[in-house]
Amino acid sequence: MKSDIPQLMADRNLDAIVVYGSTSTSSDLAYLTGGAHLERAMYLHTRQGEPVLFASVLERENAKATGIPTRLWSDYSISRYMQNRGGDVMAAQLRQWREIFADYGVQGRVGFYGLTDMGYAYRFLTALAAELPEIEVVGEIPPTLFTIARETKDAREIENMRSVARATTEVIANVFDFLSAHRAVDDVLVKSDGQPLTIGDVKAFIRLELVKRNLEEPHENIFSQGRDAGIPHNAGRYHMPLRLGETIIFDIFPRDRATGYFHDITRTFFLGYAPQHLADKWLDVKRVFDEVMAEIRVGEPGGTYQQMACDLFEVLNYPTICSDPQTTVGYIHSLGHGVGLDIHEGPRLSIFGRQTPLQPGHVVSVEPGLYYPDDGWGVRIEDTIAFGEQGEVINLSDFPYEMVIPIART
Amino acid sequence: MKSDIPQLMADRNLDAIVVYGSTSTSSDLAYLTGGAHLERAMYLHTRQGEPVLFASVLERENAKATGIPTRLWSDYSISRYMQNRGGDVMAAQLRQWREIFADYGVQGRVGFYGLTDMGYAYRFLTALAAELPEIEVVGEIPPTLFTIARETKDAREIENMRSVARATTEVIANVFDFLSAHRAVDDVLVKSDGQPLTIGDVKAFIRLELVKRNLEEPHENIFSQGRDAGIPHNAGRYHMPLRLGETIIFDIFPRDRATGYFHDITRTFFLGYAPQHLADKWLDVKRVFDEVMAEIRVGEPGGTYQQMACDLFEVLNYPTICSDPQTTVGYIHSLGHGVGLDIHEGPRLSIFGRQTPLQPGHVVSVEPGLYYPDDGWGVRIEDTIAFGEQGEVINLSDFPYEMVIPIART
Repeated sequence: MKSDIPQLMADRNLDAIVVYGSTSTSSDLAYLTGGAHLERAMYLHTRQGEPVLFASVLERENAKATGIPTRLWSDYSISRYMQNRGGDVMAAQLRQWREIFADYGVQGRVGFYGLTDMGYAYRFLTALAAELPEIEVVGEIPPTLFTIARETKDAREIENMRSVARATTEVIANVFDFLSAHRAVDDVLVKSDGQPLTIGDVKAFIRLELVKRNLEEPHENIFSQGRDAGIPHNAGRYHMPLRLGETIIFDIFPRDRATGYFHDITRTFFLGYAPQHLADKWLDVKRVFDEVMAEIRVGEPGGTYQQMACDLFEVLNYPTICSDPQTTVGYIHSLGHGVGLDIHEGPRLSIFGRQTPLQPGHVVSVEPGLYYPDDGWGVRIEDTIAFGEQGEVINLSDFPYEMVIPIART
Repeated sequence: MKSDIPQLMADRNLDAIVVYGSTSTSSDLAYLTGGAHLERAMYLHTRQGEPVLFASVLERENAKATGIPTRLWSDYSISRYMQNRGGDVMAAQLRQWREIFADYGVQGRVGFYGLTDMGYAYRFLTALAAELPEIEVVGEIPPTLFTIARETKDAREIENMRSVARATTEVIANVFDFLSAHRAVDDVLVKSDGQPLTIGDVKAFIRLELVKRNLEEPHENIFSQGRDAGIPHNAGRYHMPLRLGETIIFDIFPRDRATGYFHDITRTFFLGYAPQHLADKWLDVKRVFDEVMAEIRVGEPGGTYQQMACDLFEVLNYPTICSDPQTTVGYIHSLGHGVGLDIHEGPRLSIFGRQTPLQPGHVVSVEPGLYYPDDGWGVRIEDTIAFGEQGEVINLSDFPYEMVIPIART
């Protein structure tokens, strides 16, 4: 939570933090500024002082609306420094930051965050460290201070996540109704004009449903059928007609434009009927999903449940990433991830990385799956859950698990 | 252009380039991969060798579809290195990159690009430089190799930019028709139910128009009225009713989901009528716009036209950023910017920074404006233009400049 930031700074022995970038790409900056549109901004917070937000004169009211005390970049005009430095942009920027740091008493260990060009960050911070011997430039290997602050949601964030979850499940319900309103001819869904209903048609319908609810899709969605469902991140081919009896993975992860929070939910289903051998696979995934959902709780690290999912799949004779990190079939990804202002954030339900316990305020996806593209199928079932204040599991993805959507045949 | 990259590498004496990150945030990576959805990818290109693209097993078909030879991260499994390194993520990642660099013959000067966390970049690249003495880590202060490659569009990119421009101007035409289909009561536009038409209503209409054309708005749009139009990046307040006789700045900059390219265009208009003192301001901006558009040509640096715009505004007795970098009224921004896979990219029509000449293939906005929030108005007029192969100006923003949208009164 935001209120954890002072403690997280103290834990890292940081005297100040700097978050630099654009709110449209840097979710840490969006987190601090509540979704303001700021193209180039710097959030500066010393351990003793008040935070301050630097913004462009063009965005001075967007900055002010955040409630954070604001300064303008033009108060430390780089153009003035440029003239003094003969047009050397880096020298001018170093001078600008030096004056800002002096005015705000920035010294000691300073953590830098926010998305920037990788090479630029290296070069600029190396030069800054040389220019300002009184500061120590600190960079973190994830999980960073912000990974940890953001993975625990406060009450308002949970409400935002409930809201985007509700809107998302409405979209899914309407997509299912849209599909079942079609009939099949020779096992292919057709529209009223007799033409096949394609994945592209469904995606166009989804987009309209999303926009009506002020949802957007920075990372599109997955609506993949048959062998394409066997590659987890295949988005689905637009020209492909929808057929009965195939696995269809529908993984939708929109963002609420009003709040910036994402939801993430996946259903796998068959149109018309499920062939027995594929119905068995669906049931195997559902069984793993149900067992994990019955067990998952605060106090245990996320990796516990990834190991549990792997063990369950292996008992069912599927290869898994746990025993073979290079497998391309079977269960080939982690069990889940945090969801918030990024679609993928902390904590991770994975056996690698940090193994701190799940706790109240964490919001994670739970999404076991099986993938066999050469056999023409894939199955994934996913809900996003929050842990409430007493540690109770709150399933944000309130939507049934239907294996088959009935389709009339003619 | 992409075909310039080998020469740009040679100009910088770079033996290899590494572009690391997600295609959804790193536009340099999106540029190289043609818009593939890749969540964590690395593009590696040595001066002698073929490029190679590292991707996750989950995204192996997205990666393959780029046409770039592909490897999987799991070919150099970090989990294996993690086990060897006792769970130290950075040590494992260094080991992974070391093996990749060895296999692909990466040595000498290596340029790093792509958006990552600023502190992470500093820490990881500092450690990589220490781990691999045979490479020199090179970071660029913009304009980088990719700034320069991307600012010159090839024929296919120009076609993509024409396409998103056409769709965008269709949206504007429909918004204008939507507005003029309303009537005014007591100088406020009203809907058929008698309620005021608000900026929020217009924005909802815009979103539907965009989605029908497969356009998206990663940075929203600006539809700001009266004093709000006096702050360049105020997006407009949703609850505000539309009134006759106020300046309305409509600045729309959507991205085509199919290609990833943006368009950028602004019209300022009045509903119903233009008060004479504001009509004069509109005409002043239009005059500066027209004079710049008549003069702008290849061979001159972009800063020439920013200086020209400043000089013209100063003759008309407006303060400008050229003579007073801290002014908050008058002409307070640069004249324009490149447009492409980012809404703001090179080349800049600004008096600071690089002053290389405009050239065929450059695509820039031209957008003079005046801002007086305390006097309740702002005016900006913007088109995006491309320079053709012979240097001819191609105005991509094919839409009239109407000062007043007629409104029926009752």
